[in-house]
Amino acid sequence: MTTTHRCLRLAARPEGAVKDSDFILQEEPVPDVPEGGVLVRTLYLSVDATQRGWMSRDTYMPAVAIGEVMRSFGVGRVIASRTPELAEGDLVTGLLGWQEHAAMSGRPPLGQLNKVPPGTPPPLALSIFGITGPTAYFGLLDIGRPQPGDTVVVSGAAGATGMLVGQIAKLKKCRVIGIAGGPTKCAWLKSDLGFDEVIDYKAEDVDARLAALCPGSIDVYFDNVGGAILDAALMQLALRARVVLCGAISEYEATAPGDGIRNHRQLVFRRARMEGFLVSDYNSRSGKAFAELSAWLSAGKIKVRSDVQEGLENAPAALRRLFTGANIGKQLVKVAED
Amino acid sequence: MTTTHRCLRLAARPEGAVKDSDFILQEEPVPDVPEGGVLVRTLYLSVDATQRGWMSRDTYMPAVAIGEVMRSFGVGRVIASRTPELAEGDLVTGLLGWQEHAAMSGRPPLGQLNKVPPGTPPPLALSIFGITGPTAYFGLLDIGRPQPGDTVVVSGAAGATGMLVGQIAKLKKCRVIGIAGGPTKCAWLKSDLGFDEVIDYKAEDVDARLAALCPGSIDVYFDNVGGAILDAALMQLALRARVVLCGAISEYEATAPGDGIRNHRQLVFRRARMEGFLVSDYNSRSGKAFAELSAWLSAGKIKVRSDVQEGLENAPAALRRLFTGANIGKQLVKVAED
Repeated sequence: MTTTHRCLRLAARPEGAVKDSDFILQEEPVPDVPEGGVLVRTLYLSVDATQRGWMSRDTYMPAVAIGEVMRSFGVGRVIASRTPELAEGDLVTGLLGWQEHAAMSGRPPLGQLNKVPPGTPPPLALSIFGITGPTAYFGLLDIGRPQPGDTVVVSGAAGATGMLVGQIAKLKKCRVIGIAGGPTKCAWLKSDLGFDEVIDYKAEDVDARLAALCPGSIDVYFDNVGGAILDAALMQLALRARVVLCGAISEYEATAPGDGIRNHRQLVFRRARMEGFLVSDYNSRSGKAFAELSAWLSAGKIKVRSDVQEGLENAPAALRRLFTGANIGKQLVKVAED
Repeated sequence: MTTTHRCLRLAARPEGAVKDSDFILQEEPVPDVPEGGVLVRTLYLSVDATQRGWMSRDTYMPAVAIGEVMRSFGVGRVIASRTPELAEGDLVTGLLGWQEHAAMSGRPPLGQLNKVPPGTPPPLALSIFGITGPTAYFGLLDIGRPQPGDTVVVSGAAGATGMLVGQIAKLKKCRVIGIAGGPTKCAWLKSDLGFDEVIDYKAEDVDARLAALCPGSIDVYFDNVGGAILDAALMQLALRARVVLCGAISEYEATAPGDGIRNHRQLVFRRARMEGFLVSDYNSRSGKAFAELSAWLSAGKIKVRSDVQEGLENAPAALRRLFTGANIGKQLVKVAED
């Protein structure tokens, strides 16, 4: 075992897009195994838009402190254990951070380490069987409450959460319209994932396309992007519609207060509801989501896709990919071979 | 009986604040009693912020057409009837319009004429026993769902709906914070109506006061005003808070797209819900609201207040009073003696 490892510490709060210089790559001693805890070797890091928020300000979690290892979900192998709950060789997920090894003890802010069921490919432990699976599952089913025949619109549709939301909505017999950027993503959503309609927000007028495809008839809008696309969807709500606020990637890089949303009054006219959620609130029920998602995946009823970048040092670039829309499916960084 | 009467017809779609010249006051023949309908003599007109929206654009109802009698709720006496359902002398409410007599047949857009229970003072038939009573009742209890001990914040607190919302919330054992404009209104809310705290938005920094009085602890925000005050309330939501969208008087006169709201992301961080409603959706349950409101009023547990302007010709000025915040309690226009 090596005695040193690499980590990326937050060096500056980013202005706008994340820069490599917002982090400092350091070679440091591998931490000791904490009493009652484990030492984990990082295999893959999860790249999530919410990390951009963690870099800037306190939100539902405190901001990452300057000098702290960048906060991140990841999946890794236990390589040393001082707790009977986990054994060497166990595959675990948790807030490992942007580092090659993580000393984990007690309860990190978003829940402790989770043991991954044997046989799960590590990348899937960070997507469908990690955060984005239950995010899509509970956000759509618990907050959105789609009924058969409903029209469900999802933005960020080719992203880690959006691709699952659309497919689950199809399984619930809904008409599904996906909003994504670029012809490659749109073609994939329609031909491979079975979305009924797609809107390419980089090439098309989203307001006009929504007005044509679902005029005043969006029953569920699952929002991953916020901003102008949220406003466009608000204009086409059906009576009693549900707007699920999951993410707002278009707003996270803002350096000044944005334009905000202007069409919230439609919630009155359409007697509609807009509601936010955090997947961590559903931790106690995640077993149900994993069981159903696993059954769908095994039966070929849903498909997943990952976009893997190689090397810890490329984590900042991987995070930028989310904001330029370069990724298709779940963005990951591979840190080490299993 | 006179053969002519006066009415105010919409002459122009207003820009910003309503002007007298947006209407034309006409002397016209009193309409005939329609077959199957009644002729009603207008006693009081209800002055509601939503009328400003009706003048400008289609919303949940079509806009008032240019040349049409201005749409308005009102209370009046049946003076001639050609239907067995209503008799001469009955007191009724409905969309009588800005006119001294209304020929009513069939079903106007927001429900047909309602017969007012004998003994009800006509002004109360337009407030607590008209639209604003059930608006406050169902908006607070059905959408806001306050629990004992909850902190309830209401804006437009000295208005027709707000004054009832705060008092009902007190009856439900909540801590009530009212936002209103000016020392007279604020003193009345606190000393006469029993609000726990008041914020004078014309003299105080609403963001700072909310942060001091209820930091991150608003369980229910009942919004009558929209705009910057809605944004301020969003910043102090408790976990699982409910934001009831009732009105947005600060936004109705806008001539250009406004700034919008910027803090909707708090709905995610606080796992909170923002929901709109229209009181007309509760028509089938209004009997329950009226019974309970009536009992509270008789027992002295809630108080109501009206602000009466005299004369049909002053209806435009009365409507302006809502937007300058001149009214305390329910704004009415008295058109004729009973």
